[in-house]
Amino acid sequence: MKIDGKPYRTIWPTPSGRAVEIIDQTKLPHQLVVLRLGSETDAAHAIKTMQVRGAPLIGVTGAYGLAMALRENPSDASLADAFERLLATRPTAYNLRWALDRLRRDVAPLAPHERAAAAFEVAGLIADEDVELCSAIGDHGLRLFREIVRKKPAGSRLNILTHCNAGWLACVDWGTAIAPIYKAHDAGLPVHVYVDETRPRNQGAGLTAYELGKHGVPHTVIVDNAGGHYMQHGMIDLCIVGTDRVTANGDVANKIGTYLKALAAHDNGVPFFVALPSPTIDWSLADGILIPIEERSGDEVRFLTGETKDGRIETVRLTPPDSPAGNPAFDLTPARLVTALITERGICAASREGLAKLFPESAKISA
Amino acid sequence: MKIDGKPYRTIWPTPSGRAVEIIDQTKLPHQLVVLRLGSETDAAHAIKTMQVRGAPLIGVTGAYGLAMALRENPSDASLADAFERLLATRPTAYNLRWALDRLRRDVAPLAPHERAAAAFEVAGLIADEDVELCSAIGDHGLRLFREIVRKKPAGSRLNILTHCNAGWLACVDWGTAIAPIYKAHDAGLPVHVYVDETRPRNQGAGLTAYELGKHGVPHTVIVDNAGGHYMQHGMIDLCIVGTDRVTANGDVANKIGTYLKALAAHDNGVPFFVALPSPTIDWSLADGILIPIEERSGDEVRFLTGETKDGRIETVRLTPPDSPAGNPAFDLTPARLVTALITERGICAASREGLAKLFPESAKISA
Repeated sequence: MKIDGKPYRTIWPTPSGRAVEIIDQTKLPHQLVVLRLGSETDAAHAIKTMQVRGAPLIGVTGAYGLAMALRENPSDASLADAFERLLATRPTAYNLRWALDRLRRDVAPLAPHERAAAAFEVAGLIADEDVELCSAIGDHGLRLFREIVRKKPAGSRLNILTHCNAGWLACVDWGTAIAPIYKAHDAGLPVHVYVDETRPRNQGAGLTAYELGKHGVPHTVIVDNAGGHYMQHGMIDLCIVGTDRVTANGDVANKIGTYLKALAAHDNGVPFFVALPSPTIDWSLADGILIPIEERSGDEVRFLTGETKDGRIETVRLTPPDSPAGNPAFDLTPARLVTALITERGICAASREGLAKLFPESAKISA
Repeated sequence: MKIDGKPYRTIWPTPSGRAVEIIDQTKLPHQLVVLRLGSETDAAHAIKTMQVRGAPLIGVTGAYGLAMALRENPSDASLADAFERLLATRPTAYNLRWALDRLRRDVAPLAPHERAAAAFEVAGLIADEDVELCSAIGDHGLRLFREIVRKKPAGSRLNILTHCNAGWLACVDWGTAIAPIYKAHDAGLPVHVYVDETRPRNQGAGLTAYELGKHGVPHTVIVDNAGGHYMQHGMIDLCIVGTDRVTANGDVANKIGTYLKALAAHDNGVPFFVALPSPTIDWSLADGILIPIEERSGDEVRFLTGETKDGRIETVRLTPPDSPAGNPAFDLTPARLVTALITERGICAASREGLAKLFPESAKISA
């Protein structure tokens, strides 16, 4: 998508093809900083510190990280070690394992001297495919949005609530949950997005608001506490979120707080959609309660960074100095609260049967 | 309660009895600043800007504000005008109307020259009574906590989740929701409090964590998004919150986001208690959806103030400069999600019948 008229992806290879560049997402929305990742260590650091984040983008960055490790040392031992190190950077996003698995499967049979070049190629392929998957999700979601708009009084705006950032900044381009919003906006549908701030790291206030604003999509930032109230008052037509891992039975792990919005949507009869590319599906797990939930530093809750009126970036503490903080990064939304899943192959129920109809080949293996 | 060993209330008359002093709550937890309110204008400003907040404390401050207006001009017209001005400072807290009504009822029959002195006396009485009400709520809540502790394995801690600040800083002393926590802690029960940050104004991270810490109560600050996850994992034994207005049928208006926690508690079988002194009950309303919900400035969402590592107080912007924000300050928790109400007269179901049993004289008038 575009920033100030210039098209961007979130990650792209340097001209030499030996490194990648990314947008440093810890600096947004205040500064647009491009960072070069030149090694596996750089890639792992970027994932851990959330310079890149969002399950699909974590997967692509991990794949490039593995390719850079193989450029340093293409041995079997190096491949195995780098795989484990990168996999450990973040525990919840399933796309990371998926991308690393795929890359390893493709390059392990090759002679060591052929591995690095092949790995860079596969990583690039994963990135390009992610763009296609997201675009397809956008098309399917757009159909759904049109149906909902048709039931509204002519000319009234479509009010969408989203949590965290599942836009193009979370992927390579387009986004998952936000892809249908871009397609709807571009098609002239009067969309308006309520953007959950998404504490503690403010991916809504900082990233979703930024990318929607840069694309010209009308939006309003709200605190995470407010969505239930808006739903009670009929001000939300649908919720749509991304996900870090979907189990084979349709349970959804996503950014902490997603579960609360799904409960409110259910209580108020508001449809709750989850958008995902198939690499997010963990066919090996049935019950979502088994998904590992990352616990991050309490300092992400206690401190917050923003821009002062005179343009300085400052970090401030919100709590008393000696109050500890807990910081689980994700929560589980049970399938029963999800109206439908939107995938690159179409829309299905959040259930084993629903997923199996769209992905019979994967469902078969997992059954 | 105490701050660094020194006993405080949130509001107290100056020695002359012609003004009051308050703790400026917009400066906590970073600075303990005492402010003098010398006029109705000062009192109205303190309420509007949330130098004082919390339904009971808003009521007491409003009463002192009306007394100060009568000191300037004790005429009927002055009484009527000041009443309306103070009532308009914040629309949701019912205690404000209750306190202003009571004071006006007591002083209106008097000759103008007697009104100011009487009004100061009544305001002081309302403040003292609030302390008694809160202490009684604490005693009733303590009984409830003991019952829940009895069902837990011996020695395990009682994990309590609270939203916003309903502690002594929201009242004159003790608090509503936090009063039972202080009484339990003082009685040696192993309480631990999960403190919802409470965006956008962070009354949890800034005020509840501060007062619990100063009293030595173990606590952990969490973002508002996290409580559902903790409940899913059995880490919360009970939720307890205060309220700004309870209707005659037990619907509860409280800080934005309370509804989401009540939904999560209901979904996970966690008891959800609401603590309130009876002046919070609006006997004139049945359905909570009719409670006016204050919409505050979007800048409370977009900007945030805290302390830098080197001790400066800075305000930073979290959002892109041109993203608008919505900011409803309260939401409605329907009675069906409330396990029980804890009042100064005891514990009752959140229903017309439950409230009527405890307050037959008021219920009769409203029926």
